[in-house]
Amino acid sequence: MRKVKIHITLKEGVLDPQGKAVQNSLQSLEYNTVEDVRVGKYMEVVMEDSDNLEKQIDQMCDQLLANPVIENYSYTIEEVV
Amino acid sequence: MRKVKIHITLKEGVLDPQGKAVQNSLQSLEYNTVEDVRVGKYMEVVMEDSDNLEKQIDQMCDQLLANPVIENYSYTIEEVV
Repeated sequence: MRKVKIHITLKEGVLDPQGKAVQNSLQSLEYNTVEDVRVGKYMEVVMEDSDNLEKQIDQMCDQLLANPVIENYSYTIEEVV
Repeated sequence: MRKVKIHITLKEGVLDPQGKAVQNSLQSLEYNTVEDVRVGKYMEVVMEDSDNLEKQIDQMCDQLLANPVIENYSYTIEEVV
């Protein structure tokens, strides 16, 4: 079994209203050193290992997990003990 | 300047309906090797460095970014070039 840790982030240049809202909230809580906030998604997928695991994960991200038009994804694969 | 990468995940044992929905969608797309999905949040916060940066980030997470009742958080700090 493998645990796949997937990060999905907005591409550079894509507006992030959620991040902006978090940034404003932090600043109104007097965290004035905060300059920028970007919000993304993080998923942990536990799945069986296979020879074409990476290809399978790429397909999953492109088809369902990420929106390739505005989002990038990256992942790391760990062994589950 | 520092870039703080924050991961917010549901605590073990807390039900994750969003993760379950993603899991079901993946399985209906014939990704039958998927056993479990947990969905969390990922944030990148760019902020000025300070002596008590870690304390500040802990406070930000406890006050606003995470719900300490049901969520765990972890973070890494990187230098912004």
